[in-house]
Order: sequence, then structure tokens, then C-alpha cells
Amino acid sequence: MVDLTELMENEVFMAYASYTTIILSKMMFMSTATAFYRLTRKVFANPEDCPGFGKGENAKKYLRTDDRVERVRRAHLNDLENIVPFLGIGLLYSLSGPDLSTAILHFRLFVGARIYHTIAYLTPLPQPNRALAFFVGYGVTFSMAYRLLKSQLYL
Amino acid sequence: MVDLTELMENEVFMAYASYTTIILSKMMFMSTATAFYRLTRKVFANPEDCPGFGKGENAKKYLRTDDRVERVRRAHLNDLENIVPFLGIGLLYSLSGPDLSTAILHFRLFVGARIYHTIAYLTPLPQPNRALAFFVGYGVTFSMAYRLLKSQLYL
Amino acid sequence: MVDLTELMENEVFMAYASYTTIILSKMMFMSTATAFYRLTRKVFANPEDCPGFGKGENAKKYLRTDDRVERVRRAHLNDLENIVPFLGIGLLYSLSGPDLSTAILHFRLFVGARIYHTIAYLTPLPQPNRALAFFVGYGVTFSMAYRLLKSQLYL
Repeated sequence: MVDLTELMENEVFMAYASYTTIILSKMMFMSTATAFYRLTRKVFANPEDCPGFGKGENAKKYLRTDDRVERVRRAHLNDLENIVPFLGIGLLYSLSGPDLSTAILHFRLFVGARIYHTIAYLTPLPQPNRALAFFVGYGVTFSMAYRLLKSQLYL
Repeated sequence: MVDLTELMENEVFMAYASYTTIILSKMMFMSTATAFYRLTRKVFANPEDCPGFGKGENAKKYLRTDDRVERVRRAHLNDLENIVPFLGIGLLYSLSGPDLSTAILHFRLFVGARIYHTIAYLTPLPQPNRALAFFVGYGVTFSMAYRLLKSQLYL
Repeated sequence: MVDLTELMENEVFMAYASYTTIILSKMMFMSTATAFYRLTRKVFANPEDCPGFGKGENAKKYLRTDDRVERVRRAHLNDLENIVPFLGIGLLYSLSGPDLSTAILHFRLFVGARIYHTIAYLTPLPQPNRALAFFVGYGVTFSMAYRLLKSQLYL
């Protein structure tokens, strides 16, 4: 039987595991941010979420959209769209035996870029802060995908 | 050459594989639910989806939004936002050699909470049913992330 | 220490890695497509994205929705909803020791169906082109999930 804990002795894989856990935790924080803004601004998407704030017709006025809430939701969706490719491509890249320092550089750039993207989106900072953060994360993922496809394409 | 089927002899990994397959299948069911409500309520997002129900201008009246359809879509998106972190963190957690019974408890709680979340969202059940289901799933994922970061941080 | 590069000598896993990298890269292309349509049609979701096109009140008129942009975003979300299950179930399926040619058939069908889905969505082609592409991808993922649950359920 394979002792899976040995997989965790591979340094690239451990680095992947650490950075992935951090960036996924950050992404989960976006749910809390949405909930926070929904509750403090009394902006809800479902009738059953409002009753505490009023009865019947009175409650329905909280079924609305709000710029702040929509902004957090867009940032969350953008995270999903970018972290999912990183999750898959990063895993395969880690298993393809890259150089440790190159791999860590990729992971650090990606995680840093995504955290900066969230800050730039929620503050909001003027463009091109957010666009730049987006393209750094995007480029890192493509760089890993390129290495994967170049070194071991099997179709 | 590594016989990968051996990976499947690791009990924690097998449990992860089973619960993940179940919860991803459940998530895929949400697409069917959306399609079902779109067809039975004749509510479409794309002009090319409507022609069967009318011609020209007549068809356009089906390009609308519907509370029921939007509810399923929100449940689906919430699933995505929560199952993606579970997918990544759960995989790494499974490979980090946790105690079998602890791991299975995590997986069961998560899968149960997400299924209950869907039921609470689609019925809909009064709050705090859905909020509770959400936070159980959220807590389980954070608990796995915490163990990962505590035991093998490599930055 | 396990030499992880050996994992990449497993042919099914290598095929999974290749097809997954391709389909995730395709999904990332959707972000570029959204950005392209937003810029060429001057349709933005955030006030800070518009200043280049005007000042103050004048800029706000670009905060709108556009059929073309919304279409790309729906295609992107549909990709996410379908590629995430493939990512998780496909990985576990690859590790469960399936027949090589069966596995490759699954991966090819899925990747082909998703690429055709995007073409059908963005052109747009008349139905049932898109619906068919969707169901092929859906069926492939379910077929892998079924094999997994049948052969090694561990609850």
C-alpha cells in the first residue's frame, strides 16, 4: 500500500498545498463579506431572509440589489473563474516535476495577485490596479499550462 | 511505474473520492433543475432557446427572469462557491494523512450540510435552516484548511 | 521519498492532465472574450473601469448591460458549472485504474463537447446544438461518476 503521507514530503507538492489552501480560504472569505454587506445594508435576494426586518409587504422592500453587494459578488465570481483553473492546472503542474524555486515563484505571484485583485476590487482602487492583478494571475496560470502541454502532451 | 490503483487502497482517499463524487453529482443535478424550470415555466435567457414556443416577436416574450429559476441559479452558484474549496482543500487534507474516522466525519458533515442547503433553498424552508446548513459546510472546510496549514505550511 | 514524476508516467493520468489543461485554458479564454466585448462595446460593470471613456456623469452611461457581454458571461458560468465536476470526478476516475482507451474516449468527448458548446453559445447556433453539446459533456461526467461509485464506494 502506498503511504500517501509521502506525497506530502515532495516539496513542490507541499508548496502547492499551502498556497492553494490560502487562496481557497481567501475565496471563502468572500461569502462572509457578501453576508456582512447583505445584513448591514439589509439587501436580500430571498423573501425568507428578510422576515426579521419586517412583516409581509414591509419585508419585500429589502428584496433589492445594492452596488456594494453586487461588487463583492462580482469579485467572488471572478475569483471562482480564475482559481478553478489554478486549482487544476497547478495540481498537474506540481506533479510534473518542475523546479522548486520556479514553482514557488508561480504560486507566490498567483496568490499575491489574487489577494491584490480582491483589495483593488473592494476598495475600489482606480484602474489599472485591478486589471494588472488579473493579468498577473492569468499569466501565471497560462505559464503553468504551457509548461504542462509542452512537456507531456498525451492526446 | 507507480500503480495508481494503489492510491485507491488508501481508505481516507477512497472516502474522499466517494463523497466528492456524490456532492459533485448533486451539484450537476442543479443544471437539470434549472433546465426543468426554464422549460415548464417557459423562461429563457437566449433568443435561440425560445423558437419552439412561438415565432419572431412572439418568442421574445419568453426572454424574462423568473423567481423560481433565479432561486435555483443562486443555489447552484452557492454550491459552486462552496464545493470548489471543498474539492481542493479536501483533496490535500486527504493526502496529509488524517485520522480515518475524523476525515469521514468531515466528509459526511459537508455532504449532508450541502444537500440540506439545497433542500432548504429550493423548498424554501424558513431561515435559519439555510444559513445553518451553509455554516456547517463552511466550518468543515475551514477545519480541514486549518489542519493543513497547521501541520505542513511550506511557503 | 516518492518520485512524483512517476505519477506522470501513468498513461491515463497523463491523458487526464493534457485534456484538463486544454479545457481549463479554453475556459480562461472566456475571460478574455468578456474583456474584449466590454472594451469594444464600452459596457462596464464598475465605475472605475469607465473613466478613460469620459468624465463624471458622462462615464456613468457606460455602466450598463449588453446582450453580447451577458451571453459570454452565461457561457463562462456554464463552463464553470460543468468543468468543475469534470475536474474532480475526472481526477478520481483517472486514479481508479480505468481502461486507457475508455478513459481517453471520455476525455475527448468531454473536451470536444465543451468546445462545441462554446461555439454554439457564442455564434449562436440554433438549438438543439447547444443543448446537445451540454448533454454530451454532462453524460460523460455522469458515466465517470457512475463507474467510480459502482467500483469503490466507501462511505
